[in-house]
Amino acid sequence: MRVRDIGEFELIGHLAETLGALDRGPRLRVAIGDDAAAWDSPAGMTVLSTDTMVEGVHFNRDRTSWRDLGWKAMAVNLSDVAAMGCSPGYSVVTLGLHGGLPVDGLKEMYLGMADACRRFGGAAVGGDVVRSPVFFVTVAMTGMAGDGDTPLLLRGAARPGDQVAVTGSLGGSAGGLRMLAEGPVLDDKTGSYLRDAHNRPAPRVSEGAILRRDGVLAAIDISDGLVADLDKLCEASGVGAVVRSGLLPVDARLKAAFPQDWLSLALSGGEDYELLFTAPPRTMESAISALEIPSAIVGDIVAAPRGVSVLDRDGRPVAVERGGWDHFRDSPDPSRAGRQDQA
Amino acid sequence: MRVRDIGEFELIGHLAETLGALDRGPRLRVAIGDDAAAWDSPAGMTVLSTDTMVEGVHFNRDRTSWRDLGWKAMAVNLSDVAAMGCSPGYSVVTLGLHGGLPVDGLKEMYLGMADACRRFGGAAVGGDVVRSPVFFVTVAMTGMAGDGDTPLLLRGAARPGDQVAVTGSLGGSAGGLRMLAEGPVLDDKTGSYLRDAHNRPAPRVSEGAILRRDGVLAAIDISDGLVADLDKLCEASGVGAVVRSGLLPVDARLKAAFPQDWLSLALSGGEDYELLFTAPPRTMESAISALEIPSAIVGDIVAAPRGVSVLDRDGRPVAVERGGWDHFRDSPDPSRAGRQDQA
Repeated sequence: MRVRDIGEFELIGHLAETLGALDRGPRLRVAIGDDAAAWDSPAGMTVLSTDTMVEGVHFNRDRTSWRDLGWKAMAVNLSDVAAMGCSPGYSVVTLGLHGGLPVDGLKEMYLGMADACRRFGGAAVGGDVVRSPVFFVTVAMTGMAGDGDTPLLLRGAARPGDQVAVTGSLGGSAGGLRMLAEGPVLDDKTGSYLRDAHNRPAPRVSEGAILRRDGVLAAIDISDGLVADLDKLCEASGVGAVVRSGLLPVDARLKAAFPQDWLSLALSGGEDYELLFTAPPRTMESAISALEIPSAIVGDIVAAPRGVSVLDRDGRPVAVERGGWDHFRDSPDPSRAGRQDQA
Repeated sequence: MRVRDIGEFELIGHLAETLGALDRGPRLRVAIGDDAAAWDSPAGMTVLSTDTMVEGVHFNRDRTSWRDLGWKAMAVNLSDVAAMGCSPGYSVVTLGLHGGLPVDGLKEMYLGMADACRRFGGAAVGGDVVRSPVFFVTVAMTGMAGDGDTPLLLRGAARPGDQVAVTGSLGGSAGGLRMLAEGPVLDDKTGSYLRDAHNRPAPRVSEGAILRRDGVLAAIDISDGLVADLDKLCEASGVGAVVRSGLLPVDARLKAAFPQDWLSLALSGGEDYELLFTAPPRTMESAISALEIPSAIVGDIVAAPRGVSVLDRDGRPVAVERGGWDHFRDSPDPSRAGRQDQA
């Protein structure tokens, strides 16, 4: 059996099984299968997350500037820490480099990382530089949970009766990717919105902390797409979800640029790095009102059926590609624009 | 200016300069330029280290089994934490995978990681799986400093008058690599010693803790080779060093297998993952006697000249390749067997 013969989720299942059979001590709270690992320490809970961007897979230097690449490499990790409801701490950066890369570009990239940290917290404090025929950037980021009595935001904590909500708006990053690949849209203002949505995502760090403080228990960040990530949350929680497509928050500029496709971009596009969270209605109301950015309730958690259904205004099912982006199969559908399909 | 136009050290200098100009808060104790980053937390000092192995650069699956690969990926990180005098904590693993890799091999690799953690401490608790045309394994490992009043082992703490010592013996890993590349040596017992030296290095975790407890201040682990790593330590400390080649601890099996080359393997081979440490004579004596494995004094730290000189029994200079393995230049000397030259 090769990696390509099974999907990403099955592969992770195999690896988690191997890891899970090992004794890892009583302090471990969250292991493989959430946005970050977490454990108790005398300082409170500590989280550790890592995320990688590989050239030609997760980014393309024709479409993403060096500075934006640094921002994004840091932002995707900040988003993981945010999705646990934690504050970003120090991080280490691994660069896999070949000789042809420009040194000034790499310095620009570090400045982009610093830009993101200045705005959202954390700091890069070391790392490793290795030779690699393929350029990649890996960040490993610690985070602090602060008040250890307040539960972390977890994928496995959604319950039937919860409402499902998302911060910000959806599909902009995938729209930006499509524009960068296929050419300009409408006007410069729309183009610049879409480009920034793709290249300079805003991880929801303060929002994650507010949600956790205000009693939300379940969250995940949207990296592979609303439906794919909600599916992971449902799987981890042993529940199902119904999403109402009419409730999805979609920016008017995305709708204008892609009048045919905005819904599919919003449902499956990925890389929005918004938070997807669930809570009972009363908790949801107070949590949403505490946030400083708009958030939208988009559906409900149900006991059955498992998985995610999307319904239109008339209650009819909307066809959606399922299962998240499958990173390893040989023939990906090139129309998908998930995190693994940016090259 | 491209990465290939400057060496690894100059590149890291550029990146460190970019990072160093940023404010990273008062809690940071050690940043880029040591074996790990370190910062204060209410739980004591925390360290974070990361190390990567790229197929074709740092390993070759013809020469290293899956289980050994897992062991080694964990061991090189354990060695970084050991070189700070800290205890290994939780770690996250990033796998860059292409579709052709065998799932059973990856599971074996995880078991190898668990083998290393069972013996030396720490545990893998999560990570990330990404698609990559080149297979790589990155581990990011936290460590705890325990008693925060005891200084960490640092590269920059060597002083003139210190003696220079190493744990264990040198050159075995490079000898093993040469054997794996060029064919069997002598007998099976020698072969198995050399293979294990290369594929299952023993990070000096308990030794690092003892050295720190007993007053040693300066250490680095030997990944690029004795001379190259001592050179880094001297550079960080603003001192020079004299190594006596007659004092180098070299296993009799390595000498027997490579009667012409054992000295150069011991001086420049790399990947031994022994600790190289310095201390004034009295501290050195008590530290060495506290260790449960043999250690050898191999030279002295001097105020000038800077850099590392190697002298033979008669006090004549021994020619050594300098400056560490240069990962990025286009025409590496294929006779070198440093960490970056295993493919």
